[in-house]
Amino acid sequence: MAAVNGLIRTDAPGVHVLDDALERTVVAVRQLVDTMAAKEGFHPLSVPPVIARSILEKTGYAEAFPQLLGSVFGLEERGTGKLVPTDVVVLPAACYHVYPALSGATLTGPARYVAHGTCYRHESTLEQGRLRSFRMSELVFVGAAEETIAWRERWLHRTEQLFRDLGLEVVVEVASDPFFGPGQRWLRATQREQQLKFELIAPVGEGMRQAIASCNYHKDHFGEKFEITTAGQAAHTSCVGFGLERVAMALTHAHGPDRKRWPDAVRALVQASDD
Amino acid sequence: MAAVNGLIRTDAPGVHVLDDALERTVVAVRQLVDTMAAKEGFHPLSVPPVIARSILEKTGYAEAFPQLLGSVFGLEERGTGKLVPTDVVVLPAACYHVYPALSGATLTGPARYVAHGTCYRHESTLEQGRLRSFRMSELVFVGAAEETIAWRERWLHRTEQLFRDLGLEVVVEVASDPFFGPGQRWLRATQREQQLKFELIAPVGEGMRQAIASCNYHKDHFGEKFEITTAGQAAHTSCVGFGLERVAMALTHAHGPDRKRWPDAVRALVQASDD
Repeated sequence: MAAVNGLIRTDAPGVHVLDDALERTVVAVRQLVDTMAAKEGFHPLSVPPVIARSILEKTGYAEAFPQLLGSVFGLEERGTGKLVPTDVVVLPAACYHVYPALSGATLTGPARYVAHGTCYRHESTLEQGRLRSFRMSELVFVGAAEETIAWRERWLHRTEQLFRDLGLEVVVEVASDPFFGPGQRWLRATQREQQLKFELIAPVGEGMRQAIASCNYHKDHFGEKFEITTAGQAAHTSCVGFGLERVAMALTHAHGPDRKRWPDAVRALVQASDD
Repeated sequence: MAAVNGLIRTDAPGVHVLDDALERTVVAVRQLVDTMAAKEGFHPLSVPPVIARSILEKTGYAEAFPQLLGSVFGLEERGTGKLVPTDVVVLPAACYHVYPALSGATLTGPARYVAHGTCYRHESTLEQGRLRSFRMSELVFVGAAEETIAWRERWLHRTEQLFRDLGLEVVVEVASDPFFGPGQRWLRATQREQQLKFELIAPVGEGMRQAIASCNYHKDHFGEKFEITTAGQAAHTSCVGFGLERVAMALTHAHGPDRKRWPDAVRALVQASDD
């Protein structure tokens, strides 16, 4: 099994098996995120790589990112041999399993989950680091507006500092994913103005920069859709998502493939099982 | 998040998030399998939940189990809004990522991998334990005919004994999945005669028995398809697959949801992170 930069190719571009070193780094990064999250009371959840289509329609994702969505089709039951849409799609972001699980909840304080899953996005350009199938660990904070904004703000800085501590040349950029769905495409501009989405961008390979994490504030979008309330109002949500393969590739690019030769301070943070 | 027998429902039947106790048991079972595998030199691989459609066509799975296969469709690039098949399907078994990774290999001794992944099968009946999305840890042995048969034989007994040590009322049954594809449907009968597939069946809930593992010998089917050779001949393959949620559910059914009250001998084997 020949690997290039830790990635072992399969017959599908952008879908990889990882070599041992990169895989261990991915697992160590997930552990690091999980530990940071646990210290603040985030409840870990492993989420499946498929999700009900109805959820992505309800949230507007299906309309906002139709080109990225993978719909699962299955054989028609009537035995015609025809493939028809099933009720599931491939999961585009780990947090989409969290909001529906809180449907109808009345919160008496913030809810905190860290969701670990494998995501799929039907990317058409497949330069290095733009994987179609990739693992994501995502912290989700659900609460009142003010505390939710404050949490995102704090974790934006915390995440940036973490990456600097890991020796990565990270920059923070305001982004404008239209995650509120179209018919609301004008929101893309205001989203940028309102700074709802920040991406943390770092080199993941030679001449190649990618977002390795993003920090998002969704206002009461998900709270309204799933009738999650706090103090009589629709809850607000923020999330911080880590692209595990990308963080691992950024670390490998910065410090080399042999983790034993990484700076001690970095190794102390990203503690793999064979260290 | 209300769980029934450890399973938290989502909008898609058969697709679940697990509660803390069941999730920890799943992780502990995977760890147990990984450790047993490592002791015999099996190389761990995390595999993605999607795979190239071409691989499943080449192996005959797409023809043999069309009703179980989930095909990923995406938006047509020409901007018609139409969904068309992509080059990937949802992974039906972890081992399918292993054979193509060995394409063209000339082995000088057995190759051993333990693949961990999340699988999808479009099951139409969704009684308890028949999940559509589930995790599988699968040992794959690739070698000459005799050693490959002997390994499967040994691991069939080893797996049965493991489940007995875990306090599960397991029975072994010869099964007849037509995993060589149709046009060869007659093979289903000879497969049973040749005892190519054994299932290890245990109670996973009240009045509910399911296969929690299976031990398979594929003869030189995959070796021929992927041109894997050993001593000048197509390699033979065997695999032993563990359905992690099902094993965890069987343990919970046998010993109760509170792992702290499980028999010491069982807890010693299934060591969760909070034990």
